[in-house]
Amino acid sequence: MGMVIINFKAYQEGFNQKALEIAKAAEEISKKTEDYIAIAPSIVDLAEIAKKTTVHVYAQHIDPVSFGSHTGCITAEMIKEKGAKGSLINHSEKRLKLSEIEFLVSKLRGLGLISVVCTNNIGTTAAASALNPDFVAVEPPELIGTGIPVSKAEPEIVRNSVKIAKKINKNVKVLCGAGITTHEDYKAALELGADGVLIASGIVKAKNPKKALEELIGV
Amino acid sequence: MGMVIINFKAYQEGFNQKALEIAKAAEEISKKTEDYIAIAPSIVDLAEIAKKTTVHVYAQHIDPVSFGSHTGCITAEMIKEKGAKGSLINHSEKRLKLSEIEFLVSKLRGLGLISVVCTNNIGTTAAASALNPDFVAVEPPELIGTGIPVSKAEPEIVRNSVKIAKKINKNVKVLCGAGITTHEDYKAALELGADGVLIASGIVKAKNPKKALEELIGV
Amino acid sequence: MGMVIINFKAYQEGFNQKALEIAKAAEEISKKTEDYIAIAPSIVDLAEIAKKTTVHVYAQHIDPVSFGSHTGCITAEMIKEKGAKGSLINHSEKRLKLSEIEFLVSKLRGLGLISVVCTNNIGTTAAASALNPDFVAVEPPELIGTGIPVSKAEPEIVRNSVKIAKKINKNVKVLCGAGITTHEDYKAALELGADGVLIASGIVKAKNPKKALEELIGV
Amino acid sequence: MGMVIINFKAYQEGFNQKALEIAKAAEEISKKTEDYIAIAPSIVDLAEIAKKTTVHVYAQHIDPVSFGSHTGCITAEMIKEKGAKGSLINHSEKRLKLSEIEFLVSKLRGLGLISVVCTNNIGTTAAASALNPDFVAVEPPELIGTGIPVSKAEPEIVRNSVKIAKKINKNVKVLCGAGITTHEDYKAALELGADGVLIASGIVKAKNPKKALEELIGV
Repeated sequence: MGMVIINFKAYQEGFNQKALEIAKAAEEISKKTEDYIAIAPSIVDLAEIAKKTTVHVYAQHIDPVSFGSHTGCITAEMIKEKGAKGSLINHSEKRLKLSEIEFLVSKLRGLGLISVVCTNNIGTTAAASALNPDFVAVEPPELIGTGIPVSKAEPEIVRNSVKIAKKINKNVKVLCGAGITTHEDYKAALELGADGVLIASGIVKAKNPKKALEELIGV
Repeated sequence: MGMVIINFKAYQEGFNQKALEIAKAAEEISKKTEDYIAIAPSIVDLAEIAKKTTVHVYAQHIDPVSFGSHTGCITAEMIKEKGAKGSLINHSEKRLKLSEIEFLVSKLRGLGLISVVCTNNIGTTAAASALNPDFVAVEPPELIGTGIPVSKAEPEIVRNSVKIAKKINKNVKVLCGAGITTHEDYKAALELGADGVLIASGIVKAKNPKKALEELIGV
Repeated sequence: MGMVIINFKAYQEGFNQKALEIAKAAEEISKKTEDYIAIAPSIVDLAEIAKKTTVHVYAQHIDPVSFGSHTGCITAEMIKEKGAKGSLINHSEKRLKLSEIEFLVSKLRGLGLISVVCTNNIGTTAAASALNPDFVAVEPPELIGTGIPVSKAEPEIVRNSVKIAKKINKNVKVLCGAGITTHEDYKAALELGADGVLIASGIVKAKNPKKALEELIGV
Repeated sequence: MGMVIINFKAYQEGFNQKALEIAKAAEEISKKTEDYIAIAPSIVDLAEIAKKTTVHVYAQHIDPVSFGSHTGCITAEMIKEKGAKGSLINHSEKRLKLSEIEFLVSKLRGLGLISVVCTNNIGTTAAASALNPDFVAVEPPELIGTGIPVSKAEPEIVRNSVKIAKKINKNVKVLCGAGITTHEDYKAALELGADGVLIASGIVKAKNPKKALEELIGV
């Protein structure tokens, strides 16, 4: 029993009507499993999906500012008002400065939202854990989108990320990502000590996302 | 008769329910005037407002990418699918690289969307005009949010921005912004040769945004 | 007769003692030709090379600030005091915001230094030309470091960049870069209307940089 | 007995000839004290100062790349070849992404150079310490350049930064900065548990930098 966050990225296959379909599928599957399933749709879809489904919705990114004179910025308060449960922070496709990550982790916590800080290796996992986020999600960037699961290609990164994260902060939970597609990958991640996985193309770009998610979870 | 784009920024006073109210007000006032009124709400509100009103909706910012593996990014295609008519680009609170601005102006044009490139002075107005956007919106950053209208404080910037923009590209239209609040400011901008104004706090943070917009337009 | 700027990048083959050797070679060859040869060494080498040679030295990048509280920044004033004649701006490996480019072009001009704004295509060449720099250097990023000369692979980019640059600003000179290695490439660039070339690995990573430069120039 | 790093920033008062004078003063004072004194001059001055003095020289910033096709970038290898002993990283005026800081700390260590990671509060100090740098230098940005010493204005930040840094990584040393000018400030910092201070305008912009440094150290 673990956690699965599905990152829709800016995939056309995970936008608008298709996003809603994957969200509905996630909602349905959530009811059949004890695994915690959440989705991170495009910010443009977030409000509607949060309104129309019960699946937990996360933002893919937020900006390190509060309400105010910040044209083009997305704040933690905004996503909370729209029903999001939390946000990814510092995804490899939207890296942030250290001071910004610290700001956002604190802000999300203050608002009762969940923070998932993405990292790229053991060192940054250690550093992120020291910021006291809810989750750290380690994803070796070179494996993202390859279909080569981090749990197989780099088990030591997963194992040691978990180890160092818990050593620095026993409350932090660790996800791993990059290349995850099958139930076997998912189980391997949990066996290596991870609390769950971050997955994107494996579900969103699958021919049948619902079936892909069922297979991943094993229901 | 000119153009008014209302930038909601990340103002709490222009978010969610309040955003919808200002949008409805803009829609209503649009029907009573020949001035072209558009709004640029938060990206988190954009889809719902575009669905529930007829007022023209612009994004405040888009990222220089297309659909794909771009976590946390907003693409021109996304805002089009959600009903937006165009986007601000390069606002002083979200500045972009020259190559990114060029990419976005071309992309918006290719999608039949309107581009409004924000600039900070005469030089950058000239450069932006050479990219062939629909609009250039010149806003001296030091006047933004001050209530000191650019049309009064720096009339030469407006006049010369219009002059140089039209010289480089006779098709480009010029807006001016920063400090605009009253009908007098708006008229002054048009008299200086601008095709309209970009306004934010003057409307969004007004006690009564609807009344503020009516007064600005003069209806 | 044209202009050649040799960009040493952060190549190990163009750093420290080796940088000085290439600089000396450029100095020597300069005396045998009417072509204008300049070099852009690492900022860490710039002061020493400017002191020990007569070849014109450019910075590869400067920051959009003046003297002051700017840790880690390189200002136009600094490179001037150290003997530089100008600076590259906005190289594809160090892209700047439009407002920063405008700031730097003005600042360099004010200090009597030469500005070379790098661009990636015809659109950005037009925009950069409107800023009134001394040079615009168009380099399609996809050809950089390939050995496939832009003058052969994309002659229309060179020809049309020259055309649009001169149309917008008759005083601006146009260089082209990316993939330039041979005298033939150089001549082709000049024949397409360019005033010269920007070259990097073709000289700096050559087995014998001096010979490579002689061959490029044709002396 | 502590450590003092003097950051010359991009101050005109700390550039070129004046930089060399402050460096010579630091060298001389170093011989009269057991305190460790180091300087971080402009990168444009670094090579010459490292050659002409024996005082330890640090870079103010380096880029997260190695030798190669990186126009305008400064690498750790470059500053090592020129005689630097280490580098500041992530100064508040040149903030870096978390993944870049991790990359640079590892790289500096691999090259036998000293890393000083600047941070802005207790949270980022904890995170930086987890990266295993030689030093973390905590500087509340709002106090930088004010003359209000962090050791007096925010003693808890210093005390708790030291505490959390040592808890996460007993080998990391902690500096504090912002507003330090007098010997009293310096002593207060050491008494709060810091291993030393990072100082800039207090020395560099002093009427007599040498005297200011003597007074700071107490010699």
